[in-house]
Amino acid sequence: MPHPALPALAQASQDLLAAVRRDAPLVQCLTNFVSMNYAANALLAVGASPAMVHAEQEAPEFARISGAVVVNIGTLSAPWLESMLLTAASAGQAGTPWVLDPVAHHATAFRRGAIQRLMDLRPAIVRGNASEIIALAGGQSAGKGVDSRDAVAQAEQSATDIAASRQTVVAVTGEVDFVTDGKRSVRIIGGSPLMPRVTATGCALTAVVGAFAAVSRGDAYTAAVGALSCFSIAGERAGALAEGPGSFAWRFLDALAGLEHDCLTRASPLR
Amino acid sequence: MPHPALPALAQASQDLLAAVRRDAPLVQCLTNFVSMNYAANALLAVGASPAMVHAEQEAPEFARISGAVVVNIGTLSAPWLESMLLTAASAGQAGTPWVLDPVAHHATAFRRGAIQRLMDLRPAIVRGNASEIIALAGGQSAGKGVDSRDAVAQAEQSATDIAASRQTVVAVTGEVDFVTDGKRSVRIIGGSPLMPRVTATGCALTAVVGAFAAVSRGDAYTAAVGALSCFSIAGERAGALAEGPGSFAWRFLDALAGLEHDCLTRASPLR
Amino acid sequence: MPHPALPALAQASQDLLAAVRRDAPLVQCLTNFVSMNYAANALLAVGASPAMVHAEQEAPEFARISGAVVVNIGTLSAPWLESMLLTAASAGQAGTPWVLDPVAHHATAFRRGAIQRLMDLRPAIVRGNASEIIALAGGQSAGKGVDSRDAVAQAEQSATDIAASRQTVVAVTGEVDFVTDGKRSVRIIGGSPLMPRVTATGCALTAVVGAFAAVSRGDAYTAAVGALSCFSIAGERAGALAEGPGSFAWRFLDALAGLEHDCLTRASPLR
Repeated sequence: MPHPALPALAQASQDLLAAVRRDAPLVQCLTNFVSMNYAANALLAVGASPAMVHAEQEAPEFARISGAVVVNIGTLSAPWLESMLLTAASAGQAGTPWVLDPVAHHATAFRRGAIQRLMDLRPAIVRGNASEIIALAGGQSAGKGVDSRDAVAQAEQSATDIAASRQTVVAVTGEVDFVTDGKRSVRIIGGSPLMPRVTATGCALTAVVGAFAAVSRGDAYTAAVGALSCFSIAGERAGALAEGPGSFAWRFLDALAGLEHDCLTRASPLR
Repeated sequence: MPHPALPALAQASQDLLAAVRRDAPLVQCLTNFVSMNYAANALLAVGASPAMVHAEQEAPEFARISGAVVVNIGTLSAPWLESMLLTAASAGQAGTPWVLDPVAHHATAFRRGAIQRLMDLRPAIVRGNASEIIALAGGQSAGKGVDSRDAVAQAEQSATDIAASRQTVVAVTGEVDFVTDGKRSVRIIGGSPLMPRVTATGCALTAVVGAFAAVSRGDAYTAAVGALSCFSIAGERAGALAEGPGSFAWRFLDALAGLEHDCLTRASPLR
Repeated sequence: MPHPALPALAQASQDLLAAVRRDAPLVQCLTNFVSMNYAANALLAVGASPAMVHAEQEAPEFARISGAVVVNIGTLSAPWLESMLLTAASAGQAGTPWVLDPVAHHATAFRRGAIQRLMDLRPAIVRGNASEIIALAGGQSAGKGVDSRDAVAQAEQSATDIAASRQTVVAVTGEVDFVTDGKRSVRIIGGSPLMPRVTATGCALTAVVGAFAAVSRGDAYTAAVGALSCFSIAGERAGALAEGPGSFAWRFLDALAGLEHDCLTRASPLR
């Protein structure tokens, strides 16, 4: 399938933002403790309805009424992993798209095992930093913890390989973002150097990718592109006003909430 | 018992705010992961002393030295529910008032079972949004997740029914808040349209209701009215300055902390 | 060992801040739910790399690649305590310094037992408020919850006793901070009255103490002094601009991130 012209992709992204704001999709997050508040606020800022529902007793059931499910292994533990597996499976059965954030999956044996089991449940979209995506493709990454120590450009081939072999969409974020479904790909510029200096910015992005997936009728590629484009523009705007990471954090939420209906076509960050 | 004249109720509310600031009551919260930080900051802003103590091994013991206990099922799980039940029972035995926030209790079977067991332990005050209160009275609510999709006006009868049959105070919050003990009731205006766009605002309110209950010598009705009045005034002030949900969140904490000693009588939002 | 002259101590502190920024040490936190986000942001603001990794299945393994481990019992539970004990032991075996924040350890029997087991694993640094340190030395403290109701001056002897008997460094924070290794001691002035009105400020400090310990090559005393000095200066700067606790919280992160390379020698808060 040929890649759509960039203006058409920007228009499709913008339509998804409008749909998120119109439909306020329920986005269920099984995410880490660090990011819960910020991810919920980012979801509200774009117009979605966050639901942090994680327990084994209810999360799989809830996935059947959710518009999308987001799984993030940042503060993984055995009971949470069990629930993530059941919930991802339930989402799959219900046709609910689910998005995976493989935080620091290469750091420990526990995570390495967990991520393989989660990948086997076929996420619609995987969103990670360069170190995480390189390691996910089996490469040698420089990262040890949650921060990337590799450049996105070095992860593009890994992302394409994973997307093709797993039939998923992979979004790698960093200075220049990269989105691919294994055949098509696009780079997204913009954002702010302050983004990696605010914890949970990446996790919040993964949650917002879920919001876009919820209204995308199966077009996971455009969903990822749309969410990343919004973060790029809002990040640039917040960065222009912020005096440091503390002020960036709230200015970014203001910027996300203030995105005009035509921002993605007027000033598309797609390249 | 006839309803007190509104100026007298505003005066009693104001006296409770002064008492919170003077006594700095210890407010124990078993609340959800999303709201913990914001609820603790809201408690500090009004002058209370937050204690997020939740484990089964100590929460029931801690309830005996707490001024009030707040139970919020937002991110419920089996071990937390067990501890909530033991702690609410311990609070009841110790004469410590406890407040219940039935977040999305109608969303899953697990929650539906949990909320009945908690209600049977007789909370002094229940604080929820319209969808939650309608569902708690057995009605058909439009809400699926944590956001209300019903108007408060439609929940007033449900609130009154619950308050009367359970001998508790019910506070429904939304565009116009409603508080009732089953016989008396009052509406509270003010606030800001940005409040539902900041996650955990409702949970923080429930925590502050706990602070007021801790100093109210058993007058749960005035405690709820006082806490909601403070949120209404602070919300209005923060909303007048905020540029979006990100700036609203911290401006609201500043406004809560800056409430003057006579704000509740000078500009009462009671109707 | 004689106490270094204060200018030399300020210089050594400043060198540690530079090292944190240069090396971005991985700081593993097993901390409470309330503080996770704010502590991670404080670590990023000083230049460290936060990793909130807590599960028994991986936390002890992760401690071997961490630059420092921070254990904070604010929202303790049985599984977390088990993991904290294993991780602290692993850190000890690997030569990774670990820092203990004994939040409200005197409040319940569960905490009193936990803190003794943790202390026996020999933390490099203990950071607490006056009530916590007095109680840790076996004294009668006035505090019940997480807030101190004692003055730091009254905790100096307790801190010195603990440091000497346990061969650790103890940092007591409050209006005037106090750091001791049992033989040497120093007071640190500055900060802001708004600091105790923002939840998790103390927990964030303990995390940053960990960052300094990670680059201190075993000099725990200077690590504690350096981290506390940074908080003191950043707190003073944020306090001069803040309109309340809400604005203080983010201005403090901006101030931490904006500390100039020579701030600790130019305007040393050491006394």
